[in-house]
Formats: sequence, structure tokens, C-alpha cells
Amino acid sequence: MLSSPLVDVQGKSDGRRVPIDRVGVKNVRYPISLATPAGGAHAGPRQHTIARIDMYVSLPHHQKGTHMSRFLEVLNEHHDGLPSHDVMNLCRAIRERLEAEDAHLRLEFPYFIDKRAPVTGQPGKLDIEVVLEAHASGSEPGPDAPIGPASPGFTMTVRVPATSLCPCSKEISAYGAHNQRCEMEASVRFFPGKRMWIEDLFAIVEGCASTQVFSTLKRPDEKFVTEAAYDNPKFVEDIVRDLAMAMEADDRVSWYRVGSENFESIHSHNAYAQLEHAKSAEPQ
Amino acid sequence: MLSSPLVDVQGKSDGRRVPIDRVGVKNVRYPISLATPAGGAHAGPRQHTIARIDMYVSLPHHQKGTHMSRFLEVLNEHHDGLPSHDVMNLCRAIRERLEAEDAHLRLEFPYFIDKRAPVTGQPGKLDIEVVLEAHASGSEPGPDAPIGPASPGFTMTVRVPATSLCPCSKEISAYGAHNQRCEMEASVRFFPGKRMWIEDLFAIVEGCASTQVFSTLKRPDEKFVTEAAYDNPKFVEDIVRDLAMAMEADDRVSWYRVGSENFESIHSHNAYAQLEHAKSAEPQ
Amino acid sequence: MLSSPLVDVQGKSDGRRVPIDRVGVKNVRYPISLATPAGGAHAGPRQHTIARIDMYVSLPHHQKGTHMSRFLEVLNEHHDGLPSHDVMNLCRAIRERLEAEDAHLRLEFPYFIDKRAPVTGQPGKLDIEVVLEAHASGSEPGPDAPIGPASPGFTMTVRVPATSLCPCSKEISAYGAHNQRCEMEASVRFFPGKRMWIEDLFAIVEGCASTQVFSTLKRPDEKFVTEAAYDNPKFVEDIVRDLAMAMEADDRVSWYRVGSENFESIHSHNAYAQLEHAKSAEPQ
Amino acid sequence: MLSSPLVDVQGKSDGRRVPIDRVGVKNVRYPISLATPAGGAHAGPRQHTIARIDMYVSLPHHQKGTHMSRFLEVLNEHHDGLPSHDVMNLCRAIRERLEAEDAHLRLEFPYFIDKRAPVTGQPGKLDIEVVLEAHASGSEPGPDAPIGPASPGFTMTVRVPATSLCPCSKEISAYGAHNQRCEMEASVRFFPGKRMWIEDLFAIVEGCASTQVFSTLKRPDEKFVTEAAYDNPKFVEDIVRDLAMAMEADDRVSWYRVGSENFESIHSHNAYAQLEHAKSAEPQ
Repeated sequence: MLSSPLVDVQGKSDGRRVPIDRVGVKNVRYPISLATPAGGAHAGPRQHTIARIDMYVSLPHHQKGTHMSRFLEVLNEHHDGLPSHDVMNLCRAIRERLEAEDAHLRLEFPYFIDKRAPVTGQPGKLDIEVVLEAHASGSEPGPDAPIGPASPGFTMTVRVPATSLCPCSKEISAYGAHNQRCEMEASVRFFPGKRMWIEDLFAIVEGCASTQVFSTLKRPDEKFVTEAAYDNPKFVEDIVRDLAMAMEADDRVSWYRVGSENFESIHSHNAYAQLEHAKSAEPQ
Repeated sequence: MLSSPLVDVQGKSDGRRVPIDRVGVKNVRYPISLATPAGGAHAGPRQHTIARIDMYVSLPHHQKGTHMSRFLEVLNEHHDGLPSHDVMNLCRAIRERLEAEDAHLRLEFPYFIDKRAPVTGQPGKLDIEVVLEAHASGSEPGPDAPIGPASPGFTMTVRVPATSLCPCSKEISAYGAHNQRCEMEASVRFFPGKRMWIEDLFAIVEGCASTQVFSTLKRPDEKFVTEAAYDNPKFVEDIVRDLAMAMEADDRVSWYRVGSENFESIHSHNAYAQLEHAKSAEPQ
Repeated sequence: MLSSPLVDVQGKSDGRRVPIDRVGVKNVRYPISLATPAGGAHAGPRQHTIARIDMYVSLPHHQKGTHMSRFLEVLNEHHDGLPSHDVMNLCRAIRERLEAEDAHLRLEFPYFIDKRAPVTGQPGKLDIEVVLEAHASGSEPGPDAPIGPASPGFTMTVRVPATSLCPCSKEISAYGAHNQRCEMEASVRFFPGKRMWIEDLFAIVEGCASTQVFSTLKRPDEKFVTEAAYDNPKFVEDIVRDLAMAMEADDRVSWYRVGSENFESIHSHNAYAQLEHAKSAEPQ
Repeated sequence: MLSSPLVDVQGKSDGRRVPIDRVGVKNVRYPISLATPAGGAHAGPRQHTIARIDMYVSLPHHQKGTHMSRFLEVLNEHHDGLPSHDVMNLCRAIRERLEAEDAHLRLEFPYFIDKRAPVTGQPGKLDIEVVLEAHASGSEPGPDAPIGPASPGFTMTVRVPATSLCPCSKEISAYGAHNQRCEMEASVRFFPGKRMWIEDLFAIVEGCASTQVFSTLKRPDEKFVTEAAYDNPKFVEDIVRDLAMAMEADDRVSWYRVGSENFESIHSHNAYAQLEHAKSAEPQ
């Protein structure tokens, strides 16, 4: 009744002649740790967080199935943590272990930035959301080539909470101005040999809202951020344009997509803007 | 190999001597329609929406399983829509069809309030969230008793978006004040013979924030709500206290739980307050 | 202190020379109603549901801001419901009212399919998720051209729950086979002049899993679907290949992207596959 | 125009005579680390994870507002991580710093259990969800009393994914049986002086389903779990009853609430059961 030894059903051939773009595992939660920048020549302490991970490969038309357990095996071999500079390497390792033409890897995780309150210097942690995506294909340089996360197949995204204050509301009102939390998003790819820390991209993005948010604010800090927002009103359109100009000015960035979603305090829906641009000198 | 006729496995006896508080189906999406109030003697048009529905019964220790398909049968018999005044009746119908001591019914759905902009009168719809919960038990009055949704076993909840503006930020800042969207929540039970429309509870709740939100605002409206919020600053504590005083003043309400979550524009976390009170004259 | 009359801040010019791809309102909840197919020459009754709606336009580099309230005005003019054949027309109306080069419209909503249990014929409703996306641009045929939702700028997506049963588990086990709920997704665009009902696309997709799911099953039905799944084992790869073959065979479909996410009963993560294909005769 | 020095608006008195049950901060994301059990006399390595944290205090009727920034200050003082045995102590620290009668603390976080595949011994990590809740009040023993997390004001909850296989489907079908992922939940309180590791509660709960889930399964493992599930069919009612019997048998547990949600592979809705019991000898 039972086939013996256990048949490799996935390894059988398939006659439908339909290749599959992506097949694999989705929404795997996994602990990772990331290198952080440091002052001076020393690396910072590793930051521990929890990622949601998708791992896919392409499947040629003649092969019936992929071997799902191998994705987890590759991931489990990194059980002591997954350094950010290994994201491309992990993607390549998936491609090799699964014997595939293409491999796709996506990690999404919360990340914490140490920030002091603007006047009192009160310490605090700001939580942002980070997405790292890698794509390894047969046509890219081999696994021994000296290419880090800054290769064309690597995309880094940060989502950063901040404050937006409406210029129209300020201009037309006798006093006050509606303001709200917004979430800015920036996705970037890099020119060959270039890279960024998450902290670098965060700092560029955070500077583009009306003012920053903080986890701990005492009264002098609250006065500061209230007045700073009122002094720097921005539409959602202003935020994405300032994000675009910041990305244009950074010579590490070869491609970017920037957006902002503002959780309007005067509506139950949100305002949103987005734009995308590939610089002309981009090598791909 | 196959038992024939099909065995009623659920109807078998169980020897573990463990009664179950609630067993049934969870997260059933279903279209419903609700009666709406009207001007004059006429009922308003029915409002159509989509609910997420949980239906449970108690199970005595000696019975192995409940009959899950019967929950859906009862629900499907209401396939032309589920009027709000039938919520208690539906709960009682579940209790009878499942031959149970207790039945619990919970419906959560978006509901739309027609609201005009405060100055220009521009029409618009505000989406709120409503939860109706019913509990029918053997000790309550029989199904023929003239008790509508306003019975002790019935709870109505609304979640209403609005604007809150911080009194501290206004007081200590030279200009401006941080403000943000908040979500107020009020759950109420009623004295015997009393009831409310969703619209009634919504109107009471909406009046307790710094100002209201709208779907469509032209410039004169935006000026109005900006200044109205600045003129009426409220902490999250003020909002729940004003909600409590409004519930105390309403002689239909026998019990209430009120709360507000403010999506602070200066933080990435939220401020929250909640309180609950049963009036002394409450019959249960 | 107050500008008078109220200044049109959004209408001012902008010097940053950054055009914006998409700006507008996101996550607007709104009641809509859709036409349904009928037997014979008569239209079916309208189905009422609640959509989450995104509406965006492009903004040229020289204009400071868009006029957010106009999006809601256009939507509110459809306050009696938004028929599905009006999705492209609504998108074009947005483009005109906002005086924009491009407009994007996206509606996501639950939709209910009446389905009878396979043996007993017990009635029930199956909830699926539908996404309709439209893109209107200056280069497309004018608003008077006889193009319905079946134009190149229109994409229809359905997400359909079903059952998948693992061929490997069945093959290697002495008895039983792991199975689970899966969610299939199909996005399609149409050749000129062609269209589909949501019900049509649903029926094609539902046929590609191991077996269907139902809201109400009596014991003879449960026996039927259990055995049907065991008789028709499919990997996630098989499901997407069968979806692709069904789309290839349908001469209304010019482009498709199909996928399936299987909520594996033996893991806490999911299996996933996806592929996309534009037919060679596609006119765009 | 500006009050100077900055006024303590929150410290003012309030005349509405409405005490507030809970006021504070909600949905703060924060990195924590937890002690883990070890073999022998040595502690295991700390596990790092990310929590969503709510922190509330009660507010007497005469006080206008609480001091929100102090919640974050207390949390930030634990910036090197929050050991699990400090949950009650953190709650007491909040109560003292906020000068409140009652304090409530809730942490929810993913937690990883190292599990080997049942036949091949392949290593893997299973992600579960954990909730720790603490309540400190004026009437409990002082902060110097030797009470750890195992005090009456402490509740531990785990949510554990597993497999359920339907006894009815197995009984009535000629072959096969529908099965699916389920999520079991157990909340427990402890008798004085008693405690549990998260790993302890996890192991008790995991044993109550039809079979366990794993992150990595090779073919011999997949055969094993497929047959194990078929050999051990359980209704959702069976799962909660077995959970209850396991909790009754554990002399550390003074109170429990157990439930299971089964993501039925033959429906688009879920089956659910729950029961709650306080043992007679419970000291509160």
C-alpha cells in the first residue's frame, strides 16, 4: 500500500509546459540580528529583531515541484542571526540549494533607532519598519564576486513615522493648523560598490516631514516640536518632493521610490503621494 | 470500511466531564441590512453592509460535539438581510436550534452616517464601526416576551473617528498645538424597554472630541474645523470623562464602557483611556 | 492675520521641478452596489457591499498640490451605489475633475457567491475578495468611446478560498494526507470588447484547487468533499499551473497573473506560487 | 503669550468627579529579552524579541491628567532588555512612578521554540505568540515582598499552532479526512510561589492537538505527521477539553482559560471553542 522507499513526488516531470515565476515559502517568522554602525573604527553592537521572510525560486516548466523544506534548511543554517550584509548571500544560497535559475528573498522587520528628545535630551527608541529584498539570477556575477548588498538586485526600504502639518489649514485659519502622524516610505537601490546603513536612509527620510516624532517628550520638548511643525508646514506633495530631491542628491542611490501616507486628523481617510525614478546613470 | 448510514459522531457521549463555555463558528463574513431612523412616522431606507459574525453555544459535559452546520443554517435563513431588531431573536434562534443552555452572537460591521460639511454643507459619508452582541440564556424571558434589542443581554458598541487637540501643547507653545485623529469607543447596555438607534449613540459620542471629522471639506470648512479644534483642546482623559458624563445623563443607558485611542502626531505610539460603569438602578 | 478670501494654497506654483506619479486619497471606505448576472434576458439583483477605495492622479512638476476634496465629491456623486460597469467611467471622471494627465482607481471589497452544498443542496454564501483597478490616461480613447470595463486600463482580481491536498503526503503515507485551506488569486485584463462577470472568473478559479469550500455542509456533503480532495491531490505548483492553463484557454483574457497561498496544516508558514503572462496577441 | 515656566496642565484639578480606570500608552513597540530555561544548573541564553506593550494606570477623579512621558521613561530604563521575571516589577515601578493606585502592563511578542523534526531530527524553530499581563494595586504585598511573576496579578498566555483532524470526516469518509492548521490558546494564573517557563506551558498545550507542526519536515517526517494526525482525530471540542484536563492536572495553575480556533479546510470560516475555570483552592 505504501511506496517504499519514499517517492520523490516533487522531482517528477510535468507535461503542462507552464514555467512558474515564484514558488516557495511565505510569511516565515524568524529571529535575525543586524550589524549597526559605530563611532570610530569599531562596529556597533548587533541589533536583534524578528523578521517576516518570503523565499521563492523560479521553477522550469518540466519540473513538477520545488523542495520546500530546503528553504527552511538554508534559513536554519543561519540560526545565530542573519547579518544584513548576508542578505544577498542568503539569496544566492537559496538559488544554489534549490538548483534554480532565479531566487527571491524578502525580509520585513521592525528596527529601533536611538533618539534623544530635542531639548531635554531624554533618551528613547523610535521603531521604524524595514524591508530588504534580494533577487539572485543566473546572469549576475558568481557567488565569489565581491558584491555586497549594494548590488543591482538589492532593494532597501524604510517606513518612518513623523508629523505633517497642513499649509492650507495654517494659511486660511485665524489660529492653529491641523497636523497628524504620517508614515513616509523610501525604497532605494544602489550604484555598484555603494551601500547605506539603515540609519543613513532613516536620517535622510526623517528630515523631510514637518517635524520628527519621539518616544519620550518632556514639556520643553513638546513645546519645541509643536512650534517646529507650525514653522514648517508641508502637504503630502511637499513631503514626497523633498524626499525625491534628497534621493537625487545622494550619489549612492541609483533608483528610488518615495511615498507618504498622512493620517489626516480632519478626515477618516488618508492622504497619499508617491513617485518613482531611476537615475540615468543607473547601470541596469 | 464505511459506516452506513453516516454516524452522528458529534452526538456521542463524552466522559471527560468538561463542560464548554462557548463552541461554534468564528469570523463568518455575511451581508446584512439594518433599519435606519427616519424623519416623521416613516422608517428610513435599509442600510446594507457586511458583517463579521461569531456564533457560539454552551455545550454540556456529557455531549461530544455541537452541530456546526446548524449555525450557518440559522444564518442562511436570514438571507434577505438581518435587521438590527432581530439580533436578539437571531441569538435566541441559535440557542433553540442548537438545543443549548446559552447562545452568544456577535456582529461587527462598518456603518455609514450621512454628514454635511459644517460651513458649505457639502454632503459626505462618515464610516464608523459598530459591534452588536447578544447573549441568550435559559433563565431569560421566553422568546415570546416583548423584549427587543434593549434587553439586558444586548450590548451596542460604536467606534467613532474624530479629532483631539492637546491642551498642554496649546498652553505651553507660542503658536500651534499638536492634534491628531482619535478613535472613541462607547459600549452600552439599556434599561428594560429602552433602546437607541446606532445614529443616536454616534451623535452622543461624536460630540465629546475636540472636533468632528468629515469626508469632504472645502476651504471654509477646513478653516472652521481647524479653529474649532484649537478652541476646544482635550486630553484623552477629558474625552473619556465627557463620554462618561454623556452616558450618565442618558436615562436609556444602564451600563457603559467608554474609551478613546489618540494616534498622537508627536509619537509613534498612542494615548489611551478607558472607564466602565454600571448605574446603580441597573436591573441585572 | 487671516488671508481673505481663502487662499488656494494648492493652486500655487512649485519650483522643485519634481512631477508626482500618484497623489490622492487612500483607504476610503464606501458602500457600493454591483450588477449581477441573471438567468435569461433579465439582469440579476444588485449586490450591496463595502469597498476600500484608493483614488490618485498624477501631478505636473509646476503645480504645488492637488485638490483632495474633489476626489470625495466625485465619489459622493455616486451615492446611490457604484455599478461595476462604471468603474472605468468613475476613473475617467476623476481624471477630468482633477484636470490630470493620469488617474488611478482601486476598489477592494468582499463579494458573495450563492453556492449549494454538493450533495444535500443546502444553500449558503461563499465570501470571496475582489479588487477592481482602473487607469485612465490622456492617450486612451475619449470618454464617449464605447469601452466598458474591458479596456486595457482595467484589471479584475478575485481571491478565492478552497482546499488543497498534498500529493506527496498522500503518496508516502500509509493512510491520510495533509490538506488545508488555500487562497487562490487571479488577476486578469481583457482583449478589447471582451469582459467577464465576477462570477465567471470565480468559477474558473474555483475549479483549479483539490476541492471547493462551502459555508454549510451536512454529513453527506462532508463525506463528499473529503473524498473529492483525496481523489484530487495538488501541490501549490499544480494549482497555479492549472490556473494558467484555464486563463490561456479563455479568449477573453489578454493578460493574467495567478497565484495560490496554501496555509499548510503541518507548518506555521505558508506555501506560495505565482506566475504572470501576457498573451502575444495582447493589443497593448 | 506664553506661560512661563511651562505650566503643568495635567497636574491641575478636575471637577467632573469621574475617576478613570485605565489611562496610559498603547501599542508601544519595544525590544525585550527573556531568560530561557537550561539543562542543569545553568540559565539558558537570553532570547531577544520585539514586544507590543500597553501601560496604564488608574486616575482619581480630582486629577486632570496623567504624565504620559513617565511610562516611556520607566520603559527606557530597561533599555538593555526586559527579563520575564521583571514583568511584575516593571508593573510596580509604573505604579510608583505614576503615583497611582493601580497599574496594568501587557506585553505581546513572538517567541521561538527550538524543535527537531520527529523522524530525521532536522532542526527548526517554531514561532508562537506570548502575552504577559500584570496588574499591580495598592492592596497587594509591597515591592519588597518575595513575589515573582507567579503572583495573583500575573497572567501568562501562549498561542500555539498545531494540526487538527476531524473525527467526523474520518468516520464517515471511505478514505482521507479533512485536517487544517489550528491555533490553540491557553491563559494561566499561578498559585502563590508557583511559576512556569513559557516552554513549560507551550509543551503542555502542544500535546493537546491531533499532531504538532514543524518548520522543517523531510519526507519521512511528513509521512510521520500525516499518519499521526489520522491516528488522533480531534474536534475543536476535544482539543479544549484536553487542554482543560491538562490544566486541571497541573498543580501550579490556579486559573485557566483555554481555546482553539481551527481554520477549517472545508469552509472559509473557522471553528472555535473556549472554556474558563478557576480552581477552588485559588487564593484570590
